[in-house]
Parts: sequence; C-alpha cells; structure tokens
Amino acid sequence: MKKLILYILFVSFGQLSFSQNDLTKEYNLMPWPEHIEGNDAIFRIDTSMTISINGHLDSKRVDNAAVNFLRRLSNRTGVFIDRGFPLKNQEASIEVSYDSISNLTVNDDESYTLKVQNDKIIIKAVTDVGALRALQTLLQLVSYDEIGYYFKGADIDDSPRFVWRGLMIDVARHFHPIEVLKRNLDAMASVKLNVFHWHLTDDQGFRVESKVYPKLHELASDGLYYTQDQIKDLVTYASNLGIRVIPEIDVPGHASAILTAYPELGSKEGYEYSIERHAGIFDPTLDPTNEETYVFLENLFTEVAALFPDRYFHIGGDENAGKHWNENEKITQFKKEHNLKNNHELQTYFNIRLEKTLNKLDKYLMGWDEIMTPNMPTTAVIHSWRGENEGLPKGGSLISAAKKGYQAVLSNGYYIDRMLSVEHHYSVDPIGNVKLTEDELKRVLGGEATMWSELVTPLTIDSRIWPRTAAIAERFWSPKNVNDIDNMLHRLKDVNHKLEELGIAHIKNRAVILRNISNHQNNSALETLTNLCEPLKVYSRNKGGIEYKSFSPFTLFADACVVDAIDAVPFNKAVSLLKAKNNKEDVSAVIYNSLKKWSTNYDILLPIIDAPNVKPLEPLSKNLSKISKLLLKIFDDEKLSQAEYNELNTTIDILNKPYLDVELAVIESLQELIKFCETNYPIK
Amino acid sequence: MKKLILYILFVSFGQLSFSQNDLTKEYNLMPWPEHIEGNDAIFRIDTSMTISINGHLDSKRVDNAAVNFLRRLSNRTGVFIDRGFPLKNQEASIEVSYDSISNLTVNDDESYTLKVQNDKIIIKAVTDVGALRALQTLLQLVSYDEIGYYFKGADIDDSPRFVWRGLMIDVARHFHPIEVLKRNLDAMASVKLNVFHWHLTDDQGFRVESKVYPKLHELASDGLYYTQDQIKDLVTYASNLGIRVIPEIDVPGHASAILTAYPELGSKEGYEYSIERHAGIFDPTLDPTNEETYVFLENLFTEVAALFPDRYFHIGGDENAGKHWNENEKITQFKKEHNLKNNHELQTYFNIRLEKTLNKLDKYLMGWDEIMTPNMPTTAVIHSWRGENEGLPKGGSLISAAKKGYQAVLSNGYYIDRMLSVEHHYSVDPIGNVKLTEDELKRVLGGEATMWSELVTPLTIDSRIWPRTAAIAERFWSPKNVNDIDNMLHRLKDVNHKLEELGIAHIKNRAVILRNISNHQNNSALETLTNLCEPLKVYSRNKGGIEYKSFSPFTLFADACVVDAIDAVPFNKAVSLLKAKNNKEDVSAVIYNSLKKWSTNYDILLPIIDAPNVKPLEPLSKNLSKISKLLLKIFDDEKLSQAEYNELNTTIDILNKPYLDVELAVIESLQELIKFCETNYPIK
Repeated sequence: MKKLILYILFVSFGQLSFSQNDLTKEYNLMPWPEHIEGNDAIFRIDTSMTISINGHLDSKRVDNAAVNFLRRLSNRTGVFIDRGFPLKNQEASIEVSYDSISNLTVNDDESYTLKVQNDKIIIKAVTDVGALRALQTLLQLVSYDEIGYYFKGADIDDSPRFVWRGLMIDVARHFHPIEVLKRNLDAMASVKLNVFHWHLTDDQGFRVESKVYPKLHELASDGLYYTQDQIKDLVTYASNLGIRVIPEIDVPGHASAILTAYPELGSKEGYEYSIERHAGIFDPTLDPTNEETYVFLENLFTEVAALFPDRYFHIGGDENAGKHWNENEKITQFKKEHNLKNNHELQTYFNIRLEKTLNKLDKYLMGWDEIMTPNMPTTAVIHSWRGENEGLPKGGSLISAAKKGYQAVLSNGYYIDRMLSVEHHYSVDPIGNVKLTEDELKRVLGGEATMWSELVTPLTIDSRIWPRTAAIAERFWSPKNVNDIDNMLHRLKDVNHKLEELGIAHIKNRAVILRNISNHQNNSALETLTNLCEPLKVYSRNKGGIEYKSFSPFTLFADACVVDAIDAVPFNKAVSLLKAKNNKEDVSAVIYNSLKKWSTNYDILLPIIDAPNVKPLEPLSKNLSKISKLLLKIFDDEKLSQAEYNELNTTIDILNKPYLDVELAVIESLQELIKFCETNYPIK
Repeated sequence: MKKLILYILFVSFGQLSFSQNDLTKEYNLMPWPEHIEGNDAIFRIDTSMTISINGHLDSKRVDNAAVNFLRRLSNRTGVFIDRGFPLKNQEASIEVSYDSISNLTVNDDESYTLKVQNDKIIIKAVTDVGALRALQTLLQLVSYDEIGYYFKGADIDDSPRFVWRGLMIDVARHFHPIEVLKRNLDAMASVKLNVFHWHLTDDQGFRVESKVYPKLHELASDGLYYTQDQIKDLVTYASNLGIRVIPEIDVPGHASAILTAYPELGSKEGYEYSIERHAGIFDPTLDPTNEETYVFLENLFTEVAALFPDRYFHIGGDENAGKHWNENEKITQFKKEHNLKNNHELQTYFNIRLEKTLNKLDKYLMGWDEIMTPNMPTTAVIHSWRGENEGLPKGGSLISAAKKGYQAVLSNGYYIDRMLSVEHHYSVDPIGNVKLTEDELKRVLGGEATMWSELVTPLTIDSRIWPRTAAIAERFWSPKNVNDIDNMLHRLKDVNHKLEELGIAHIKNRAVILRNISNHQNNSALETLTNLCEPLKVYSRNKGGIEYKSFSPFTLFADACVVDAIDAVPFNKAVSLLKAKNNKEDVSAVIYNSLKKWSTNYDILLPIIDAPNVKPLEPLSKNLSKISKLLLKIFDDEKLSQAEYNELNTTIDILNKPYLDVELAVIESLQELIKFCETNYPIK
C-alpha cells in the first residue's frame, strides 16, 4: 500500500504535468501508467527478436505470459519471429526479471519498470505478476510506420492506485461457458484488472457442480453449469494471468434456484419453487431459523471454498425484501425469541453465522452493502453497490464502510449493464473529494465493474463489457488526476481494437446479428443505423423484468447496438460546438456528411425490407432519412416552408420515442439542429 | 443396411425424377433427403409454437436437441416463443417420437420421417438419433415471406446412403481448444455427419493427458492438451448430437512428440528427439523390435480406449519411410531373425501385435491404408487416403480393401486442407461406377473429410472446413444421383449462412484478420481482394514444410482468403459463357460491373497503404485495377492501342504468379477476356 500513499502526495500537487498530458496523445496506453517518460527510441519488431526470462525462480505465469506475448505480437504484426519460445537466463532483445513469485493475495505488489530502447527492452518487477503487467504495457507500445511495426521508446515506472480492480460476471441469469470467461479474463489482464468476481448463483440458476448436494446442478441449472474441474481450470487460468477469482453464492435471497433443488430450506412452506425465467427481485428466501439451512450452507461453502484459493468469499446478501419471512409464523416467532427487531436484524443474525462458517474455512465474508448493519463485525468486507438510484448518497456506502472499519469495494457507478456511456463510468472516482485517514484509505480496496446478465448472452456479452471496462480499469489503476475524457476516448479507440486480437467478440458478433436480421443480404443500411442507435438504458429495456425471459431471443436489432454509438459521438460533439458558436459558417463537414449519409439510409434499406426483422426498422430509417434530407435542404441554402418545418418537428417527435428497444443517440443533436435552423434560416 | 440396397435399386433407374430436381430449387436442404414430396403448407413460427417429445423412453439426446432447436429457432427468427422447453407426452404443434435409444454404433438406424403441415409437424424415427436428424432437416425448412418466418410444407422420408460420415480434425499440428471442436460438432450435426475422427497425436504434439505416461502431455504438448475430463465431456457432447468419436494415436511414425517424452522407445539411439515445429514427414519412429514399445502402447491404448466408448480405434500407421529402422543394426537383425523381408513386413508385424492389444480392449484397429499389407488380418479397418497424388489409382485402396474383405472408409478426394473447390470434392463418389457385390458394398462404410492443420489455427479453421464439408456431407448421406453442381451450390449458399448461427466463425473471423491487417482502417478494398483471391492450393503454400513453423503468424492476407472466392465464381462463369458464345453482345453485366469494381480497387486501397501489412498488397491491387480499367476501356468501345494491349499482357503475366501465398482466382478468366478482346475488338 506504500504506493497508494505516494500517489496521494502526488495528486496533492494537482493536475498532471503538461509533458505527461502531451504524452497521452502519443502513447495509446490504458491504464495510463503512474510515471512515464517518453523517448525517441524505436525498437523494430523483426524475425530476430528474442525474449528472455531471467533469475533463479520459475514462474509458470511469466513463462505462459512470454509465450502469449510472442504469439500476440507475431499475429498482430505478421512477423515470423524465429524464436517462438522465451529463452532462460540468456541475453535477449527483451529481458524480463522479477524477484519473487506472487501468491496472489489482495496486497500483491504489481509494480514494474519498463525501459524501451532502440535495441533493448528491460522489464523489472518485484513479483512475477508485476512482470505480467509490464508485458501488457509493452504490447500497448506497438506502433507502426512505413517501415514496419516497432515498440515506441519509453521509460515507465508503474504501480496501481487500488489493489482491487475487478470485473463481476453474472453467469446465473444467462450462462456463459468457460471460453467466454477465458477470453474476458485475457481482456481483463490486458488492462491490468486483477479480480474476477464470479456471480455463480441466482434465482435463474445454480451454476456449480456440487458433489455434496448434486440436486443443485441437476435440478437448478437447466444443465448449464461448470464442473468442478472446469472451475479449477478457470482459477488456474486466471492465476496465470495474475487474476484472483472470488466466488459468489448469493444467499439468503436470490435463492429460487437453490430452493428448486432443496425446497425444504425455503421460508415459505408449500411454495412451488422453480427456476426463475424473468428478471427482478423475487420472494424465495432461505429460512434463517432452520438449523438445516446452516448445515447445508456449511457443507456447500466448504465444498465451494476448496475450489477457490482466494481468501475472499462473497455471500451476496442483497435485495431480500423479507416477504416470505413475514409470511412465516415460525420465523416471526423466532425473531421474538431472539430479540431480533426486524428482518434486517434477522439477516444480520444469518450473516454472522455464515461469517463464522467462512472464518473456519479461513475465508473473509464479503457481501453486498445490505450486510452492513449495526451488529455486523468489521471483519466482513462490504461491496458497495447502492447509490442515488436506491435513494442513498452516491458511492456513500463505500466511504461509510471504510470509516466504520470495514474493508470495502465499490461497484456503485460501475454497473455496466445499465448501458450508460463510458464517460459516465470514467468520471466516477471511488473516493472523490472525501478526506480519509490513512487507515480508512487502506480499507478502500478498489472497485468492480458489474456485468449483470439478464439481457446478455455469450453472443453479446463482450460488446456490453468492452470497451467501457477498459476505461473503468484505468480509473482503478491510474492516478486520480488522469481523468480527461477526450484524452481517454482517444486512447480507448486503440485499446478497443486490440481487444479483438484476444478473441473478444464485441465487434465481430455485431455483424453476425445484423447478417441474421437481414438473412445475409446487404447490411450497409443496418450498419449505419446500429452506429447511431443505443440500447435502452437503466433497465428500461426490460420493464418490470417480464418483457424478456431468460430464453428470449437476444439476436435483435438492440443487441447489435452498443453504448457510445460510434457515429453519434462525433456528430453530437460537432452539434454542440455549432450550438456554442451559433453561426451558420460553423456547420461542419461532420454534420453535413452525417446528414448526407443518413438521408440515403432508407433507400439503401429498401431492397432488404422484405426480411421480417428488417421490416420493423422501416419507420426509424424512413424518418431519419426524412429529417436528414430536410436539414440538408436548409444547409444547401434552400429555405424550408412552414409546412416543411412542421414536418421536421413532427418527425423528430416520432424519433424521440424508444423504438425496438433502442434510442436514437443523435436525437438531442437533431433537435438542436432544428432549433438552430429555425433561428438562423428564414422560413420560405 | 437395408436402405443401402433400396438405394441401389433406386439409382439403377438413373437420374433424379424431374419433380425432385425442381424441388431442389425450392428447398435449401443439405444433405438432400432420400425422398421428399413438396406441399403448399405453411407452418407459421409464432409465440404459441410448442414442441413435444412422446413415448415411454427418455433420451437425453432428444431433450437436448429439442431445447437447442427452440433456441436456434428463436434466435434466428426473433420470435419470443412462450414455451422455452419441450413438453413431454402432450399434444403440441411439433410432435417428436422415436422407438429406441441408440447406443451409437456404426450400424445405427438414422432414418426418420418428417411431415410439415399447416398447423402440425410430425417427426417419427426408429432411434433417438433419427429424431435428431429430423430436427436438423426441419431447421433447414425455415423460410420467410412478408408476414414472417415459417416452416415450408414437405413430406420427407429420409435415411443415409453411408453409415460412416466423418470429419477428421488434426489437433496436433495446431492445437484446437474444446470450444472450437464443439462448435464444429454442432455444425457437423447440422449436416448430419456422424463421426468425429480426432487426430490426437503427431510429430508436433501429443494432445491427451496421460496419467500412465504423464511425460507425454507434460513434455510433448507445449501445455496444449486435453484433460481426460475434457475428453469425456467432448465425447458426451458428441454423443448428444448423435456423433461417434474415434481417437487416433498415430504410430509407429509421426512419433516425434511421443519420443520427445520417451526417447527410449525410439528407433535411433542417441537421436535428439524434440517437438517438431515444421510440417512434413519426419524420421522419428517407434522401435517395433523393442518389447517395451508394446508394453507402452498397451498401457497407453488401455488408458485412451477407456475414454472413448466407440469400438473403432485409429492407430494411424501412415507415412513411415523407415529411415531410422534402416539405420538401426538391431532392427535389421530382428527383421532377418523374423523373416521379415522389408520394412512393410516389419510394420505389419507391429500392426498385428497392436491389433491383438486392441482386440483385448474390444476395439477394432483402424489405420491409414498403408496398413493394408498382405498379412494384415481383415478384421482391421482400412482408411483409404492415398490416390493419384501418391501414384495410386483414384480412390483405389477403398475398393480393393472392400474386395479383399476389409471394412473401409474413404478420405482420398476429401482432403479439405488441399484448398480445392467444393465442386472438386462434391464430384468424388466413394464407389463411382465400380460394380461391387452386396457384401463388398456393405464393407464400404463411407468417408471422412480430413482437416489437417499445419496451416490452420482456431482463428481460421472454420473457414477451411466450411462450407465445403457440408457438400461432402451430402455426398455421404444423399443418393448418388444427387450430384448436380449448380444445384448444390445454390443450396450451399443458404447452408453456409446458417452455419454462423451455430457459432461457426468462417465469416466473422475473416473480417477480424482484415481489421488486424489494416489496423482497423477502412477495409473495403481488402474485402474486394479477399473475395477474389484464394489461398495457394495442394500444399504449395508451405513449400518443403519449412516456410511456416507451427508458431508462425496465420493472420496474413492468405488466411483471410478462402476457397471458392465468392466474387470469382460468378465472374468465371460469366466469362466462360462469353467464351462459348464469342459475341460482343454477350459481355454481361456481371463482367462489366466486376471490372468496374476492381478498376477502383487501388484508389480505395491507397488511403490505408501505410499499414505495414497492407503495403505488400499494393502490386496486386494496382495491377488488378490497371487490367480492369483497360478492359473497361475496350468494352466502353474505345479501342486500345497496341501498346495498351501489350500492357494488358504484361500485367496479366505478373498477376499470374502466386503472390503473398494467394492466387488470383479470376486469372484465367481475365486471360480469356484479353484473348476475346484481341479477337473481337480491332487495335487502334
């Protein structure tokens, strides 16, 4: 944690120095390193390039990372590197050394130094994990010129701001096979995330093979679960990437699946428990007054804990409204007998018993912030998720947890399933301007992006996680004052592309969906639309959780659309500039050319309109083309009639409504443009 | 085998009836069923659609297939089907029944009937595997009109021509992770292939976890192997698709990997065995005179056999030149002592011993056709691979094996790694016009497409297997007289698209490679070129096996190109028509528009020419554009000067050379066009 303190001293000087701000335009690094000095060196990537691992230790992680480094480099550049495997304790053009092998705990040292010179690259790290982080930085230094590919000269001294930099993936609402997780672990490692939080159970499924309670996977998973061997394999895979894996078994609520298998542990006798197919908060809850519940959980946790070497164990603990508890006379009686005033106190009673169980297993209990009740011991770890949407202060529970003596991790602000812009998430600082003592600061472990999967399948999950999570990773790793949005967006573009070489399917699977929609006809009109539309935000896509079931199709137009629609971003920026200047001379090429492109969208769509899932896009395309044509007519200096202005306004109102689960991401800009025209161009 | 005899009677009547030929234009079925009658029924796919499984049996295969059927249908059509799981023994709009559960042997009954009416679909099969085949046919009957998606009415009575319809994947030259295999198994099932032949070992790697001889996977796989659990999982996965899995442990040659781990079993003392990085035929060979070799193989086969329930076990046995045998005095002595005249006889001695081992394990020995030596018992199964390229008659060893009393499987003609056209493979009939007795016919089990993987990685393998293997699958399943090329190509187009919904990455990964090549710039010029170029054929890409190592990059332009280049096929057809008619009036729109497109290719490429892996494409693009422009000039009725004609001919000669491991698939047509112009248009 020493580095953290150094950082605090550093940021107290204020903004990044000018030279560093300059460098961010030259180097596409993400997360941005703590210290970097640029230099003019050019290390050419050619067939003779070698990499050696040095020192008396043997780290499977570094061996593995060095091979992957060579493969990625070769695949990206097309260079036939002669030596396809790392050398050991030999002179090489890239020399890696480290002092110790990490046992992958929360306080791991991940620092490293990286020097890129004309003919030599030196990586040094305290731990093998630090060496891994350095190799990822080096891969981001690949550049090219007319001669070929090269590493850009730099002198980097880097370490993270927070020790806990996570991504949670919910595999309960939709199951995500091992290979989906592996490619996302690869991507996590590429942006130096170090915690994979595996949300393994929920109302919609129990995803772990249990040898102790086999009905869990047999009856409560639809056959979609991980075998224990697969779990061990994944944990090893993650460890080789320097990533810790935290399992979550969500109790006592979110328990429909568990209770489908073992209804006798439920709070409501005679209730017909079944795997939930919808999204939402449901009533099935474990009975905390039944001793069998604790026997079950102790056996289950013992089994699951053995699969995960990490000391942190997540028990969920969220969103229990207690309806079934209230409806159970025996539970009401129990509360009276034990002097538990309300369901919160009952849940605390439950949590404290689980904590003892976990402590016996040498684990820390971690839970969503509902577990932070007055009696909960501070040995528990608080996962802060609630905020303004839940009527609480923004990121409030994180700071209050740290102040109360709990270790804490922040997810409020990093709910990527809410489909908000990268700018939004990037702007959330875990600590903000709150003053914390040194001890309190230490207890703020870091944060986690959360990929809840109600509306996400293996086909679409990558485009929901990436590239936004790369920017969140920077928030967790880089100094607080690395926070310029435009600068981040510029670097993110390159990182986004490089994710594809790791198998991340965020780009290619969008095309798959479009081909399916059009039945493999010409997709250019559809592509234009997806680059302008974004999926509905903040859970408005699945109102009441009942529009979509877990087996509904997620191969729709909305699934091909992504947040931060690529053509919308520059258009909106151009319009906002125009608005500021409010001058006809400033109607830029971006605006004009975009309108030009959109004006023909309907004509391009027409030949494929016979496809059943293209047909519903007709109004969107037609109205967009209509507005674009009218606006172009104005800019081409033909005045509009009042009737045409009316048509503009009627059409924009139609486009302003959510449609096919998407929203037009340029709608506000189009409205602004119409206003601008009404002011600046006379009516005919 | 009853169906086979019926078929023979059937084909003896000659060509397909006219009505059936008509139907092939209306139904995109592949493989084409044995009997089909069309009808005008339209079964609308809507939210209320249900599927039920009926009878007293419980088949995990059918349950699984019915769920997958619902998911694929919903994903393809976007219909929110209310009942996301199959019903049991209930009335439903789709009713499936079968009489028995297959134990997945070589003689399985896969027949089925399928009736699609306006509001009812009935599937009946002898075995659960037959029901699976029917569901795949039904998915191919999905059509659409302006109202929506529907199943096209039909009355089908279907069963396969051959019982062995396989795909071999070589996972030794390049390792292919489980998920690559699973998606290919899904695709195999979609075209009714039923044998996955898993080439698990070769000079370049040993890919099975061995608990008996752990050095095999530890020292001879670079860490790239399947655990025994993964293998069992894959076998179960395949079984659920009605696919048998045949393992191959290739001995005594192709043994560099085995001997890297256990050099003491090698034929050449003191030889430095190591994992091979190149492609080709290598010397390392097991010592057949060493009793330890047999102990080793018996233990290993016993271990491997236990993972594969199928009775067939492939021992390779191919391409042993015997060099190390000749160089070993002890082996020479052994041959004398045992009266073995040559290395062939020595290998037969070896094979016969292995057969006894396998028989004890209740397995049939299968091997490449080199094992068919005079003394080899007819209980062995011959895998015919050699043909005209190896100086033998075309498909000869298959017929001679059947005549000699061996069961036999044909791969000669189905080597898809040779990068030949689908037309070529489709035209190879396993039996051809040879007259065989009923018993001989029975012994011709079928065939296998072989995906050798020297030049194939997980990124590219799908585009090398598909869609050509779908046409080969038709060759194995459908009546012999279903052999019209144009008709097949028409249906293949649709099948090709539907493969994408199974996760087959043959389309999407090509775009990934192009984005990598251009560093995510505008790829349209590159796309045009890949649709015109094909990877070098018949092993000329990797001359001598040394241009590429196993860890060389396969993210090159050639890797984005595929056989049967999509824009070349119609262009070549149009030119061939023009040549036949030899009339200026017949320069078709296809020819003119293609040239128009190509003429601008260089201009479109220029803005991205700075990318290091785009630059080398400059001559190809420039010369193609030059030729196209000159030809257009002629067709636009501007005569060419002699100098311009000379330029045409010089340029075409340049383009006629292999370049960047590809060939221009329209080269001959362009040559024809030039000739046509020289004849039909006067020189200026």
